[in-house]
Amino acid sequence: MIKVGIVGGTGYTGVELLRLLAAHPEVELAVITSRSEDGLAVADMYPNLRGHVDLKFTVPNMDLLKSCNVVFFATPNGIAMTMAPELVEAGVKVIDLAADFRIKDAVEWTKWYGQDHACPDLLQEAVYGMPEVNRDAIRNARLIANPGCYPTAVQLGFLPLIENNLIDSSRLIADAKSGVSGAGRQANVATLLCEASENFKAYAVPGHRHLPEIRQGLQIQTEQPVGLTFVPHLTPMVRGIHATLYAELTDDSADIQSLYEQRYRDEVFVDVLPAGSHPETRTVRGANTCRIAMHRPQGGNVLVILSVIDNLVKGAAGQAVHNMNIMFGFTEQCGLEGIPLLP
Amino acid sequence: MIKVGIVGGTGYTGVELLRLLAAHPEVELAVITSRSEDGLAVADMYPNLRGHVDLKFTVPNMDLLKSCNVVFFATPNGIAMTMAPELVEAGVKVIDLAADFRIKDAVEWTKWYGQDHACPDLLQEAVYGMPEVNRDAIRNARLIANPGCYPTAVQLGFLPLIENNLIDSSRLIADAKSGVSGAGRQANVATLLCEASENFKAYAVPGHRHLPEIRQGLQIQTEQPVGLTFVPHLTPMVRGIHATLYAELTDDSADIQSLYEQRYRDEVFVDVLPAGSHPETRTVRGANTCRIAMHRPQGGNVLVILSVIDNLVKGAAGQAVHNMNIMFGFTEQCGLEGIPLLP
Amino acid sequence: MIKVGIVGGTGYTGVELLRLLAAHPEVELAVITSRSEDGLAVADMYPNLRGHVDLKFTVPNMDLLKSCNVVFFATPNGIAMTMAPELVEAGVKVIDLAADFRIKDAVEWTKWYGQDHACPDLLQEAVYGMPEVNRDAIRNARLIANPGCYPTAVQLGFLPLIENNLIDSSRLIADAKSGVSGAGRQANVATLLCEASENFKAYAVPGHRHLPEIRQGLQIQTEQPVGLTFVPHLTPMVRGIHATLYAELTDDSADIQSLYEQRYRDEVFVDVLPAGSHPETRTVRGANTCRIAMHRPQGGNVLVILSVIDNLVKGAAGQAVHNMNIMFGFTEQCGLEGIPLLP
Amino acid sequence: MIKVGIVGGTGYTGVELLRLLAAHPEVELAVITSRSEDGLAVADMYPNLRGHVDLKFTVPNMDLLKSCNVVFFATPNGIAMTMAPELVEAGVKVIDLAADFRIKDAVEWTKWYGQDHACPDLLQEAVYGMPEVNRDAIRNARLIANPGCYPTAVQLGFLPLIENNLIDSSRLIADAKSGVSGAGRQANVATLLCEASENFKAYAVPGHRHLPEIRQGLQIQTEQPVGLTFVPHLTPMVRGIHATLYAELTDDSADIQSLYEQRYRDEVFVDVLPAGSHPETRTVRGANTCRIAMHRPQGGNVLVILSVIDNLVKGAAGQAVHNMNIMFGFTEQCGLEGIPLLP
Repeated sequence: MIKVGIVGGTGYTGVELLRLLAAHPEVELAVITSRSEDGLAVADMYPNLRGHVDLKFTVPNMDLLKSCNVVFFATPNGIAMTMAPELVEAGVKVIDLAADFRIKDAVEWTKWYGQDHACPDLLQEAVYGMPEVNRDAIRNARLIANPGCYPTAVQLGFLPLIENNLIDSSRLIADAKSGVSGAGRQANVATLLCEASENFKAYAVPGHRHLPEIRQGLQIQTEQPVGLTFVPHLTPMVRGIHATLYAELTDDSADIQSLYEQRYRDEVFVDVLPAGSHPETRTVRGANTCRIAMHRPQGGNVLVILSVIDNLVKGAAGQAVHNMNIMFGFTEQCGLEGIPLLP
Repeated sequence: MIKVGIVGGTGYTGVELLRLLAAHPEVELAVITSRSEDGLAVADMYPNLRGHVDLKFTVPNMDLLKSCNVVFFATPNGIAMTMAPELVEAGVKVIDLAADFRIKDAVEWTKWYGQDHACPDLLQEAVYGMPEVNRDAIRNARLIANPGCYPTAVQLGFLPLIENNLIDSSRLIADAKSGVSGAGRQANVATLLCEASENFKAYAVPGHRHLPEIRQGLQIQTEQPVGLTFVPHLTPMVRGIHATLYAELTDDSADIQSLYEQRYRDEVFVDVLPAGSHPETRTVRGANTCRIAMHRPQGGNVLVILSVIDNLVKGAAGQAVHNMNIMFGFTEQCGLEGIPLLP
Repeated sequence: MIKVGIVGGTGYTGVELLRLLAAHPEVELAVITSRSEDGLAVADMYPNLRGHVDLKFTVPNMDLLKSCNVVFFATPNGIAMTMAPELVEAGVKVIDLAADFRIKDAVEWTKWYGQDHACPDLLQEAVYGMPEVNRDAIRNARLIANPGCYPTAVQLGFLPLIENNLIDSSRLIADAKSGVSGAGRQANVATLLCEASENFKAYAVPGHRHLPEIRQGLQIQTEQPVGLTFVPHLTPMVRGIHATLYAELTDDSADIQSLYEQRYRDEVFVDVLPAGSHPETRTVRGANTCRIAMHRPQGGNVLVILSVIDNLVKGAAGQAVHNMNIMFGFTEQCGLEGIPLLP
Repeated sequence: MIKVGIVGGTGYTGVELLRLLAAHPEVELAVITSRSEDGLAVADMYPNLRGHVDLKFTVPNMDLLKSCNVVFFATPNGIAMTMAPELVEAGVKVIDLAADFRIKDAVEWTKWYGQDHACPDLLQEAVYGMPEVNRDAIRNARLIANPGCYPTAVQLGFLPLIENNLIDSSRLIADAKSGVSGAGRQANVATLLCEASENFKAYAVPGHRHLPEIRQGLQIQTEQPVGLTFVPHLTPMVRGIHATLYAELTDDSADIQSLYEQRYRDEVFVDVLPAGSHPETRTVRGANTCRIAMHRPQGGNVLVILSVIDNLVKGAAGQAVHNMNIMFGFTEQCGLEGIPLLP
């Protein structure tokens, strides 16, 4: 059993972390912080946790957090980088579910997040927590930058192709659709039911913060220059991301289906579907699974990859728990074996 | 470990049973039948089960079913009563999730279900599988009539009042709202997304099959005559039942909150909320929990009870597994500890 | 052509008023005010109005408003009562879509709305704008209190019975379900898509502000004491109210179907459905129609009335335009003939 | 006033045609046919039409249809081509909302629609009813092939670029998302609320019937070879198509915003949004409008065009009425001026 702390657990990522950790056999939930909800029982805010989580929200307390083996940050961007150095120094593992440590280049980070980075050194040390790519580094990391939701779905979809230089990496397109929970639980007109249901729209087409993160992740895998057009869309549902990826094959002879099956054969949370499949977001609802299918419409040289995840699980809390499992030597599926809820 | 069979597993009740049983530590899924889908892998129809269920649908085979310790029927009404006698005779426990054994009076049953009953004797023997009422009888039962979804939410809401004769049982009102999954997975115009979303309607106001089942369940608990008006409504969501119950208090001095808390103190799947609460269906999504709150608006003598369940779990598959747990001496929560998925 | 002003047009009631008035052949939209959106083109906030409405929001200006023939208030409660006296004095007709003038008893109003009433005299003069009841008074009114959404659906459902003393008015029940647009367009966690979709809940069971309004409206029609239990519910859809009403018949011989058909024969916006019907909220989406059906389940003495409206139209903006039509001598359907959008 | 007939009016395209035609000032609805619903009042199937449409469905009768000035076919594919020749011969204008006359090459048509074409000569004569391209031909056409829903959104989005050879037409991508009403009103498991809500998926990635239609429409406008990848997706909402289009600019200096504004300046049903906009499907709900916005993310040479329509209106019934208006010399907006319903 390890002691776990959560900083900032009032949002959807927080409640999902709580759902997963409360059922995790190796975890003792020790502390969950929220300045605004100090004193409130977690289960009063999230009645689904009644009988499962007895904690109350408390104001962040460094001594308490230092008594944990690992601390998750489910905070807005810009918080983790102010607290992580002290925790890491004290020997506490840190997993940041926000974006503070995702982009290696501090200048680029500042460009997209609009503030100076508080600890550029730690930024360099942080490990990008995508187990399918960085498993070994995660194992010994002190600080994990948990990947963004879109970046998870998009990178897992492109990786086998990029790693093998089978596509023209200069003209990649990622058309991604997300459920509304990706926008968080803040009171916001744009995500009211009456604004976001029975509606579909693209947003942030000129530039979304996940663009540099995805580009960085892909560029590491290839010496070809990566050119990516990324268009996110808001979809009238709660959970799920569907990434539709387009790439031009440069090697016509590759057996794409077999390539993906080989690449992900040992990955417990990536499921390559049979040839011809169309993955549905609901088939991963509540689970830490990414399902992928590949198509070559009309036998042409354009490859269409379909990649689906639950944005709150594989795209956030689940992947964070997966990272924790690796860091502490638990089996990778530990606490992540729940079956998706369908319908 | 017990061997479990499922007859008719292609509907929503079936896939939910599979989700729960596949994760149940005491269960070996031995057989699942479907005449129409013979040979199809279950996970091909329900991709959420990929990696969790390896079974294929097969044509019903009595010998195979007899090799099971328990057989669940997730069939349309009228099937279980033709197969249950032979199974029960062979010493196999049977749990029917359909309505074949819910109404004790065979004439009444015929009136509502439009066919003669195939085994009136077994109908008499069958135990109505509501653990909060019939726990002892369930323990030794050979055949369980698993309660309907509306009847579960409505009876659990009224029970403490009826058992104590605190209300005028002759003028009960149950205004119930169900998600669309209650209508099943058959191709049907009325439950198309384009017909049932962004819409709300009552249905079957002249008389719904769950009316006699509820009335029977309440009448058993009181010598007062039970008069019930039951109006079901179709709600634009997938899962969940919200029953709003109205009754007139005959004993003004009763402490209703305390009464409910006492009645359900030892029930692991009934959660009486703090006074003043408004339970939400999403707080029980995917879980075998019924949450209840009581109100006395304006301090008058009309009592309003709010009772919510997940119709596919506490209202069907979960309650069936709960019954199985009792029948085989497992802990009652075994395999039913999943935390509701919210949001 | 009359000149029309709207005070506070940024909410859903406001945009619906704009949709109706922009297409009204007798109306010139002269001014629409919003302090917070001063200078913004209405069509930039509501792109559905592009090409139909050229106005910009402006800070409220009394001189401009006085130049109008009629001013609609689509403001939060408590605003209209501070501005209406001056407008009425200046000869401008006022229609308040908020609650400032709905409850005749100023003490009762203060109890439910938590503030003193700013003009109790005008409160007495105001006419409750339900044309099916007050057509003559509306015709000559200076100030209209436009009914609330729930009160519209509930009163139209009970009226024929109450007017004829056919039911026990002391034990009425109104179980009402509303789409989320009834909660307005304010940023609010409870009405986020991720909170309100795939969910159903009752709210304000101890007491909702529409309770005294309904009770007052019914009490006017009978000398029997009116006792009403009113439970509103939040339904996961945008538009629509479904009121399910329960009453006990005191006169067993009444022909209810015929009674309703007679009562509403000349009402263009009340549609009594054929016997046995179950009205659906989507059949009135976008229209000023109330559809009603009556049932007597199992032939008992409990009457179940089903009444549906679009809360933004018949329950708000459409009824307001109807009132305007009566006040200015236009045909009642003028500008209100749009056919409901289905699906 | 012209006499109008509708063949096959029971689907969503049919009810939408009825909604538009019932309110059209130049139209007398003379006949609506349905073999399966013969004798049923239209308003009994579609209660939104109560009080607006008095017709009953009747078995198709050629004499009656020949007495009409124009007949719309809202039938499944393959019906119109068997009846259109006789009607056209009799001088009746025909507008086919199905796909029988959309693809000029009968061999290609057979490949995608799986049957021989019944009247290849008439296929050649038929005019593709996209007014923004073929207005003059429509004016004098005897037979109109009303465009598909996806093809309308996609072609209007690409047209200004293709007509001016500003993009590499060999590598076009159309990632399109449709509401579920596009799948029609047939009882079908895949479009049940419980299957299609809270879910997102691509479908028909290997090849969708609208692909050749779009390719044909674009190819006509350029001498460059058109290469198109088209991926449709099912979106959990009733109405709306959002097409996200990707193209590589070959002429870096073009002023794209101005180009689109010029191209559609005189088109009443195409609305080019201000630079930087993200059109939402709900802003065209119920209206015959296509709204378009263009982006050049990061200033690169990839152009992203966002194009939204209501699939049942601009993508079907509305465009059909627009064609009728042109054919009979009515103003183009006649009967199509309804303001979109938002929220």
